[in-house]
Amino acid sequence: MCHWDTAQLRPERGRHGASDVAVARSAVEEPPGPGEGEEDGNPHHHGGGYRVVQWEWSYVQTPYIIATWLLLASVAKILFHFSQRFTTVVPESCMLILLGLVLGGVVLIANEKQLYQLEPALFFLFLLPTIVGDAGYFMPARLFFDNLGAILTYAVVGTLWNAFCTGFCLYAAKLLGRVQADLMDFLLFGALISAVDPVAVLAVFEEVHVNDTLFIIVFGESLVNDAVTVVLYKVYISFVEVGVDNVQTADYFKGVASFLIVSIGGTLVGLVFALILGFITRFTKKVRIIEPLFVFLLVYLAYLTAELFSLSAILSMTFCGIGANKYVEANISQKSRTTVKYTMKTLASIAETIIFIFLGISAVDKSKWAWDTGLVSCTLVFIFVFRAAGVIGQTWVLNRFRLVPLDKIDQVVMSYGGLRGAVAFALVVLLDGKQVKAKDYFVATTIVVVFFTVMFQGLTIKPLVDWLKVPRSTNRKPTINEEIHERAFDHTLAAVEDIAGLQGYHHWRDKWEQFDKNYLSKLLLRKSVYRKSELWEAYQKINIRDAISVIDQVMMTSQICDDALRWPTDVDMY
Amino acid sequence: MCHWDTAQLRPERGRHGASDVAVARSAVEEPPGPGEGEEDGNPHHHGGGYRVVQWEWSYVQTPYIIATWLLLASVAKILFHFSQRFTTVVPESCMLILLGLVLGGVVLIANEKQLYQLEPALFFLFLLPTIVGDAGYFMPARLFFDNLGAILTYAVVGTLWNAFCTGFCLYAAKLLGRVQADLMDFLLFGALISAVDPVAVLAVFEEVHVNDTLFIIVFGESLVNDAVTVVLYKVYISFVEVGVDNVQTADYFKGVASFLIVSIGGTLVGLVFALILGFITRFTKKVRIIEPLFVFLLVYLAYLTAELFSLSAILSMTFCGIGANKYVEANISQKSRTTVKYTMKTLASIAETIIFIFLGISAVDKSKWAWDTGLVSCTLVFIFVFRAAGVIGQTWVLNRFRLVPLDKIDQVVMSYGGLRGAVAFALVVLLDGKQVKAKDYFVATTIVVVFFTVMFQGLTIKPLVDWLKVPRSTNRKPTINEEIHERAFDHTLAAVEDIAGLQGYHHWRDKWEQFDKNYLSKLLLRKSVYRKSELWEAYQKINIRDAISVIDQVMMTSQICDDALRWPTDVDMY
Repeated sequence: MCHWDTAQLRPERGRHGASDVAVARSAVEEPPGPGEGEEDGNPHHHGGGYRVVQWEWSYVQTPYIIATWLLLASVAKILFHFSQRFTTVVPESCMLILLGLVLGGVVLIANEKQLYQLEPALFFLFLLPTIVGDAGYFMPARLFFDNLGAILTYAVVGTLWNAFCTGFCLYAAKLLGRVQADLMDFLLFGALISAVDPVAVLAVFEEVHVNDTLFIIVFGESLVNDAVTVVLYKVYISFVEVGVDNVQTADYFKGVASFLIVSIGGTLVGLVFALILGFITRFTKKVRIIEPLFVFLLVYLAYLTAELFSLSAILSMTFCGIGANKYVEANISQKSRTTVKYTMKTLASIAETIIFIFLGISAVDKSKWAWDTGLVSCTLVFIFVFRAAGVIGQTWVLNRFRLVPLDKIDQVVMSYGGLRGAVAFALVVLLDGKQVKAKDYFVATTIVVVFFTVMFQGLTIKPLVDWLKVPRSTNRKPTINEEIHERAFDHTLAAVEDIAGLQGYHHWRDKWEQFDKNYLSKLLLRKSVYRKSELWEAYQKINIRDAISVIDQVMMTSQICDDALRWPTDVDMY
Repeated sequence: MCHWDTAQLRPERGRHGASDVAVARSAVEEPPGPGEGEEDGNPHHHGGGYRVVQWEWSYVQTPYIIATWLLLASVAKILFHFSQRFTTVVPESCMLILLGLVLGGVVLIANEKQLYQLEPALFFLFLLPTIVGDAGYFMPARLFFDNLGAILTYAVVGTLWNAFCTGFCLYAAKLLGRVQADLMDFLLFGALISAVDPVAVLAVFEEVHVNDTLFIIVFGESLVNDAVTVVLYKVYISFVEVGVDNVQTADYFKGVASFLIVSIGGTLVGLVFALILGFITRFTKKVRIIEPLFVFLLVYLAYLTAELFSLSAILSMTFCGIGANKYVEANISQKSRTTVKYTMKTLASIAETIIFIFLGISAVDKSKWAWDTGLVSCTLVFIFVFRAAGVIGQTWVLNRFRLVPLDKIDQVVMSYGGLRGAVAFALVVLLDGKQVKAKDYFVATTIVVVFFTVMFQGLTIKPLVDWLKVPRSTNRKPTINEEIHERAFDHTLAAVEDIAGLQGYHHWRDKWEQFDKNYLSKLLLRKSVYRKSELWEAYQKINIRDAISVIDQVMMTSQICDDALRWPTDVDMY
C-alpha cells in the first residue's frame, strides 16, 4: 500500500507527510542501501498518467534493512547447525565472526568502502540490553547472592588491577612500538580493554557447560564490572581532556564517589523497576495477553533509565531481572511464562548473532584502524598475564573466607575464560580521535584482542576443560527433600552466626527472607498466589520440622549447640 | 552506561560517534520530547572536572518514548478491565479513543499545540502489519476459502459501489455546505472513506462473538478491499494532479489493469514468502529458539516487499499467513507455537491500543481540521445508506449461488458492522493540501465518521446482536468423526460436480488437496512430520472408508448415484 507516495509523481514540490519521515529515517541508517540508486532510474516508469508499480525503497528502507539482517543472521545460525560434528568443536561465535569477515570482505570489494559496522548506539541501546535482560531475568538468584562476595571482588578489585597494570605496562613498553601516546591514553585503553565481556562469556560458556559456581562467578563478574568500566572510562576521558597536569586531588575522590553513585544508583534504579514490575503483574489477571509485554518494557526501561542518568545500565537491568523474577513468575500465567522465556531467549540469541557478525564486518574496515605489532603483542601478553595474576592473588585471599574454596582448576578456567568482546570494541570506537591521537592503533588492537579471546580461547577452552576434568554442570532439579534440607541448613547457619555473635551473610539472608515474607510478597504477589504459597509453606513447615528434629538429634549428640535455646523459636516463626 | 556521551563535555567540538546517530534519530521523532529543553540547563552540572550524573535525554529519547507509550497503553488496558460490569457494555476501543481525547486535551492545554498524532508512516509500517499479520496467520483458512466468493464480491463490488455513490452524492450535495471542491476531490474522499477497516472490525467484532461465517465475511472483506482502496486512491490522486480534463480513456483501462496487478501481485508476493517460510522451518530442528523469529520476519517481509513494489501489502501479508500457517505449525515445536501465538496476540493487542489512543489524540488538533456540518452529516448518512443498500443488493445476488444463504439478520449485522477506522484516517492525513484544497474538511469529516462508527456503532452493535438473536460462535472443536465426515462430504461434492460435468469450487479444492499432498507437503514439511501425517492419514483412511461405506449405502438406497462408478477410485487415491 503506497497510497502516500503518490507525492513521488510531483518531484517539483517535494515529498510530504510520511515521506518526510522516511527521509529523516534514512538519515539514521548510516549507509545508503544498495538499491537506492535505482529509484531515479526506475525501470517501471510509464510514459504518462501514473505508475502502476512504483519502487518505494526509501520509504520501507529502515525496517527492510533491519528485517533482512535479522533474517540473514537466523539463516546463518541454521546453516551452522547442519554439521553436528563441526558445531561440537567450533563455537558458534567463531563461525559468526568468520561469516562477518567474509561478508565485510564482499561488501568492501563491491563498494570499496565499508557500509556496515557495529554502531555503538545500536549496540548499547538495542543489542546489549537484549542479552543482559535475558541474562538478568533468568539469573539463578540464590547462586548469584551466595557468590556475591567473590563476584564483587573479581569485578571491582580485579578489573581495577587489570586496568591499571595493563595501562601502566603498555606505557612503559611503548618504546617497543611506534605508538606515541600519553600515560592517560594508555590508562584509558587499559580500562576499556580490561573488562571481561558478558556477551562473549555467555556465548562461549554456554557451549562449555562448566559447573554452576564457576559460571556464575565469571559471568557475574562480567556484568558487575560494568560500573567500574563506566567510571574509569568517564574519569580518564575527562582527565585526557583537561590534561594530566591540571588534575586536582579532589578529582580522584570524585572518581571514587562517582563509582559508588554509578554502581549503587544503577542497582537502585533496577530494584525500583523490579518493584513496579512485580506490582503491575498482580493486576493482569484479566488481560493475560499483555503480561509478557510488561516484563519486556519494564526491564528495558530499567536499562534506559539508568542510561538516562548515566548510571550503570547493566547493573540496573540485572538487578531488575533478579529482583522481579520471583514475583513475576508467580503472578503471570503459564503461557505468559513460556512466551517471556522463549521470546527473551530468541531475541538474545539473535542479538548475539548480530553482534558477532558485525564484529567480523567491522574488522574489514581499513580506514578505521592502524596496525602496530608491538602494541598488539604487548596487549595480548599483558591482559593474559595480569588476568591470571589477578585471579590467583584474589582467589588466595577469597579462599580464606569461602566455605567451598576455589581450587586450582577453577582458577585456570577463570583466567582463561576472561574473554573480551563487543563492549570494549564499542567503547574504543567511541573515542574521540582528536583527543586520543592513538585511537586507530587502539581500535586495531581491540579488534585483535577480541578476536583472539573469542576465537582462540573460545575454541580451545572446551578441550582445556575436558583435559582438566573440570566438574560439569548437572541439569538435575533438586529434590524436595534437598530443598527442605537446604532451608533448614540456612536457618542453622543463621543460628550459628547468631550464637557466635556475628551478623554475617546467613543472618542477613534470614532477615531478608522474613522481610520478603512479611511485606514484599504481600505487596507484589497476587492474593491467590500468596495464599497458595502459604499453604505450600505450611506443608513445607511439617517437612522442615521433621528434618530439624533429625538435625536436632545430630547436634545434641555432637554436643555443639547445647545452649542454642533460641533457634527452635527461629524455626517456629518460619 | 554513558561512556560515549563524554563528548558533551566539549561543546566547542560538537558531538561524535553515537551522539551523531542520536541526533539523527531525534530527527525522526516528530515532536521534541518534553524533557529535552532541560539538557542545557542541566541541574547536575558540577563546577569543574566531570559530571558524575549526566542527563542523557537526547541519546535515549527514541526508545524511551516508544517504551513509555507502550507502557502507558498497557496500563490503560489493565485499568479498563478492572470494572467487569463496565467492560461488558463499553468496548475497549471506545474507552481508548476517549483516553486519547483526554490525553490530547492535556497535551494541548500544556503545550498549546499538539505534540503527537497518528503518523501515517508509523501506522502503515509498524502498527497495521502487526494487526494484519496476527489476523492473517491465524485466519481459519477453510472458512475463508469457503466464503471467498462472498468476500471478494463485498470487497470489490461493494467497495466500488460505496466509493462511487458516496463520492457522486457528496458532490451533488455540495450545495448544502461551504466546502467547494471538484468532483475528483469528492470521488477521492469517497474512495478513502468507503473501505471497511480491518482494525476497527477486529476490535469491535472480537467482543461481540457473532457466528464464524458472518465474522469471516465482514473481516475478510475489510482485508481484501485494501487492493481496491490502494488503486482508487492512487488513480484519483493522479487524476487530481493532471486535472480531470486531461484524463484519457487509456487511463481508465490502466486503472483496471493496475487493480489486477496490485491485488494479484500482492497475493503472489505473500504466497512466495509463505513458501520460503514453510521451507525454512523444515530445517530449524537444531535451533528451535529462532523459530518464532522466522515467522515474524518472513510475514513482515511479505508486507514490506509488497509495499516496496506498491502492491497490496495487506493482501500479501494475509495470504502469506494463510499459506504458511499449516506447514509452519506442523514443523515448529510446541513451545515455538505458543510463543508465536502469544507474541503475535500481544503485539496486535498493543498495536490496536495505540492506534485507538492516537486516533483520540489526533482529534484534539484544531490546526489540522475544518468543520462543515453539511459535509459531516451528509457523509454519515450516505455511507450508512449505501452500505446497507450495497449489502442488500449483493446478498440478493449472492444468495442465488450460496449453499447456505445469508438471511436478513446477517445483512443487518453486515450493514451495521461496516466500520471505518485508522486506515481512512491515515490516508486522509496523507492528502496533499495544495492539491486537495478541501483536505482540512475531509480530515474533520473522517475523524467524525471513524469516531461515530467505532464508538456509536461499536457501542450499540452488541445490544443489536442480542436483540436480533444473531447466532453466536461456538468455541467447540469438531470431533474426529465430524472431521472425517467433512472430508468424505468434500469428496462426495467434488464427485457430484464431476458427474454433473462441472469444474466448480469443490472440484478445484479436491485438486488442490491432491497437489498439496503430492508436492507441497513433501517440499514444506519436515520428513518426520510428513511421515507422521502419512501414518495419521492411513488411520484416517480407514475411518473414511467406514464412513464412505455408510454413505454408500445411503446413496444406494436413495438411488441417486447408481452410475457413480468412478468416485470410489477417487477415494482410493486419497
